[in-house]
Amino acid sequence: MFKINENYLKLPGSYLFSTIAKKVAAYKAENPDKTVISLGIGDVTLPLAPAVISRLHSAVDEMAVKETFRGYAPDLGYEFLRSAIVKNDYLARGAQIAIDEIFVSDGAKSDSGNIGEIFSVDNRIAVCDPVYPVYVDSNVMAGRAGDYLPDQGKFSNVIYMPCTAENNFMPALPEETPDIIYLCFPNNPTGTTIPKAELQKWVDYALEKGAVIIYDAAYEAYISEDDVAHTIYECEGADRCAIELRSFSKNAGFTGTRLGFTVIPKALKCGDVSLNSLWARRHGTKFNGAPYIIQAAGETVYSPEGQAQTKEMVAYYMENAAAIRAGLEAGGYTVFGGINAPYIWMKTPDGMSSWDFFDYLLKGANVVGTPGSGFGPHGEGYFRLTAFGSHESTQEALARIRSL
Amino acid sequence: MFKINENYLKLPGSYLFSTIAKKVAAYKAENPDKTVISLGIGDVTLPLAPAVISRLHSAVDEMAVKETFRGYAPDLGYEFLRSAIVKNDYLARGAQIAIDEIFVSDGAKSDSGNIGEIFSVDNRIAVCDPVYPVYVDSNVMAGRAGDYLPDQGKFSNVIYMPCTAENNFMPALPEETPDIIYLCFPNNPTGTTIPKAELQKWVDYALEKGAVIIYDAAYEAYISEDDVAHTIYECEGADRCAIELRSFSKNAGFTGTRLGFTVIPKALKCGDVSLNSLWARRHGTKFNGAPYIIQAAGETVYSPEGQAQTKEMVAYYMENAAAIRAGLEAGGYTVFGGINAPYIWMKTPDGMSSWDFFDYLLKGANVVGTPGSGFGPHGEGYFRLTAFGSHESTQEALARIRSL
Repeated sequence: MFKINENYLKLPGSYLFSTIAKKVAAYKAENPDKTVISLGIGDVTLPLAPAVISRLHSAVDEMAVKETFRGYAPDLGYEFLRSAIVKNDYLARGAQIAIDEIFVSDGAKSDSGNIGEIFSVDNRIAVCDPVYPVYVDSNVMAGRAGDYLPDQGKFSNVIYMPCTAENNFMPALPEETPDIIYLCFPNNPTGTTIPKAELQKWVDYALEKGAVIIYDAAYEAYISEDDVAHTIYECEGADRCAIELRSFSKNAGFTGTRLGFTVIPKALKCGDVSLNSLWARRHGTKFNGAPYIIQAAGETVYSPEGQAQTKEMVAYYMENAAAIRAGLEAGGYTVFGGINAPYIWMKTPDGMSSWDFFDYLLKGANVVGTPGSGFGPHGEGYFRLTAFGSHESTQEALARIRSL
Repeated sequence: MFKINENYLKLPGSYLFSTIAKKVAAYKAENPDKTVISLGIGDVTLPLAPAVISRLHSAVDEMAVKETFRGYAPDLGYEFLRSAIVKNDYLARGAQIAIDEIFVSDGAKSDSGNIGEIFSVDNRIAVCDPVYPVYVDSNVMAGRAGDYLPDQGKFSNVIYMPCTAENNFMPALPEETPDIIYLCFPNNPTGTTIPKAELQKWVDYALEKGAVIIYDAAYEAYISEDDVAHTIYECEGADRCAIELRSFSKNAGFTGTRLGFTVIPKALKCGDVSLNSLWARRHGTKFNGAPYIIQAAGETVYSPEGQAQTKEMVAYYMENAAAIRAGLEAGGYTVFGGINAPYIWMKTPDGMSSWDFFDYLLKGANVVGTPGSGFGPHGEGYFRLTAFGSHESTQEALARIRSL
């Protein structure tokens, strides 16, 4: 008789965003006359950039003709895209990353969920708390997280690194030594980040302890401050201890178009074994490339027009972020983030719980956000708003919140 | 100090098709004047159907406008695509599959590689021999296959079910009881298939033993004989023991466009746990959907124009298959397959080994095929040719082979 992977049964309840969706649907059903504004899920709303649209069309045309039709893509991604990535995202930042260290994928969520496969189940992971749920859940599924402790909202074998206003959302080096450290800067969900000098400390720590950093840089395009690293490979020695995950979702609006990549430097080794070769084997065996037309569109993001147009999109969202910060502060709320990331992390007022504030905002202002406690126990008492709405809906949401 | 997943190190040498690519590249470098024809890898060559191209363009246009722009797709895939699948691939065949039993993905290779995740590592797998390498390699990576036995070309904990001319390429029910049975019909690599009555025996066997069948139906569109099941759910009881993998790669030429789906009926359970819910959790946690524009194009494959145009593509390839069969038979070769699948499985002449015949064909005729032994020990003495070339290159390859 076959048996299932029992680790799946350790996952508590349903996914955060499904719970929110159900609550919102129930409210809308009971209040059909109300207009609910969502600043909840981190999904973009602006259409794709004109240069991207134009390249998608021309790539589709290539697929219509035998001479230019493309079948299976190269395992690691098309070289035209990997070259553009290396040149613009790495060499331009002084990071010596080579083309065969780039693995093109269908997005950072897949990569962050799958990357654990090349590591032993015995490794111990460390995550920030609050945290993007995929890091933890994928490790639960792999059997690496231990058991769920409902009274603590934690897994028994995961090292949690609190990030709160008290430490300025900068995790401290953990007391217990982890084997794999997940870091996401600029951070989801807190919308904050850490200076490059602080990131260098993590690289030094990982090298000292023989740990690997899985560095999620999905929000890199939102960095506005000079002392923040755009890639972890700006830090010395990171090529020997860090894997970087990148995405086209938030910088170019590809959430529904799907494109991302993972960087694994060949210098990153466990004994004689290069993690680059393990991931290449995983990629070659269990993945068949991102669609040609999407990879072609991805290359265009790096063209002069693509860069100008996607920077405009980022600027548009960051105007929302600034407006949310200013509006909430003027309303007496305490807010964080929103300067190098498209998320605002606010303290709930009067010591309300995150979910109580969710209900209060939904019912009182018809505005949807994300309860901080959904991202981990140290997210309790916080609430996330995203900057991905339109200017109009964002202003309207702010006005409603302030009139509460 | 972090540790890697040591199971990866059990994988022998490089992937079959990389080895072939290297041999071909070396031959071309030494013989720049020769024109090499590849009937090796199973990649399509005809451009996408006009209806698909047209829908890709209109979907791209939707992504250009705020009102019709699409961000994150629903976890399981867009309902418009899942409805079309249910209606055309299942209800039309008398198989009662529901929309929420369909999981849209980026292709059957990903799904066949990832599906093992929801099962315990302790399960024992059975595979046909020869076999599509992904089934075995993904189980090696998971630690389910045991150790590689170089003298046998097998893994110690895998049940191999020989498929040779002697048993008409119909695997016998295994003597040892497996927990998970991988079946692919019409078959890659042998190009043969089994009648529906024979498939029913496997379903009955799985139900009796409490095993799960992972049924790869990627070549379903090539079935030409009436007594062959187009989906395993045509067999009674299959909804309680079978997962089906499907692809748009071979029926609609999506190898470089990437779209597929997996069917997990809710009736398929381990005790109280529905495998459908486990895969839904996996999908929601580690995957973020196929691109909207590709899903829209996938729906068009089911339109009247899409059906007519893709059927023409399949017919074109099957004309190649018939030509290869007839040409090789006239040349005195023994051939199998090519009637319900786009692959021809030929016996190597004079007891040559598969790799010797590969070299003989490459050097003597400048034709590339795939050595049968690359698919498993019982593939030794066989050789695979694909029907995915053009009519012209296929005829030229045949003429060269026959002049040897």
